[in-house]
Amino acid sequence: MKLNNLKDLMIHELKDIYSAEHQITKALPKMMEACSSEKLRAAFQDHLQVTKMQIERLDNVFDMLGMKAQSEHCKAMEGIIKECESMMSERADKSVMDAALIGCAQRVEHYEIAAYGTVCTYAKQLNMTDVMNQLLMTLDEEKATDQRLTMIAEETINIRAER
Amino acid sequence: MKLNNLKDLMIHELKDIYSAEHQITKALPKMMEACSSEKLRAAFQDHLQVTKMQIERLDNVFDMLGMKAQSEHCKAMEGIIKECESMMSERADKSVMDAALIGCAQRVEHYEIAAYGTVCTYAKQLNMTDVMNQLLMTLDEEKATDQRLTMIAEETINIRAER
Repeated sequence: MKLNNLKDLMIHELKDIYSAEHQITKALPKMMEACSSEKLRAAFQDHLQVTKMQIERLDNVFDMLGMKAQSEHCKAMEGIIKECESMMSERADKSVMDAALIGCAQRVEHYEIAAYGTVCTYAKQLNMTDVMNQLLMTLDEEKATDQRLTMIAEETINIRAER
Repeated sequence: MKLNNLKDLMIHELKDIYSAEHQITKALPKMMEACSSEKLRAAFQDHLQVTKMQIERLDNVFDMLGMKAQSEHCKAMEGIIKECESMMSERADKSVMDAALIGCAQRVEHYEIAAYGTVCTYAKQLNMTDVMNQLLMTLDEEKATDQRLTMIAEETINIRAER
């Protein structure tokens, strides 16, 4: 199907994000198993819940667009998660692994910040305020998660990992 | 080799970034060919030059750490570029393709923002001020590129693509 206009492209991108979010729900439990810090595990657990809500929000967005939710395999998220899995297979001191997992999670978050940021500007251009507001809510959550991870890294994990 | 401490992890991450940057230098010329907007092509061209400087800066960083520059294949960037290539193979209106290419490029930028942000916090924790300053310079450039792309999208490309 040819992408004729910005709305076609927005739908194309939403399918990519829908796939990315589903991949994240499968990756997070593995990351929770691999980490040692309780604080970090709690952050991953919270983000898993938030991700599930974000998927429901995407269902709403597809609904607003008068279509069923659809997924198109996100190769980028596949690559980011592959890298994360390869990191989890490294031999590492426990707190160093925790620091590494934060790095992985922040790559995931930044993919989402870019992807949601992009579809937000499309929805804005298309005057789809309701769609935009749903996507903006998620974008803000991704940014908040990224900041929370930076705080955990700087205040605890990186200090422990330095030794 | 076991990752025993934050310095080991920083070196591990720098090898990943070094690979990512090299992959980007190969992807950008293809993106320049695929785009129609002169303004966007100029932005990609500029970023190619900046990326080459950033690679030299990484060479300096490895030098500061008393080692040769090394690369470890970045699977995440491979995935991001695969997604970009699959987008370039879509049938699309010219300005829609331009909008899509901006979305791809911003995913690349955000990977780098996450990766450089991470190694910056490591260098800061390790009191390696010179290393940190080099990495911060690149981080700022990636953020500036991301903002420039948003501006091009909102002021020109997305408006053209809407029709």
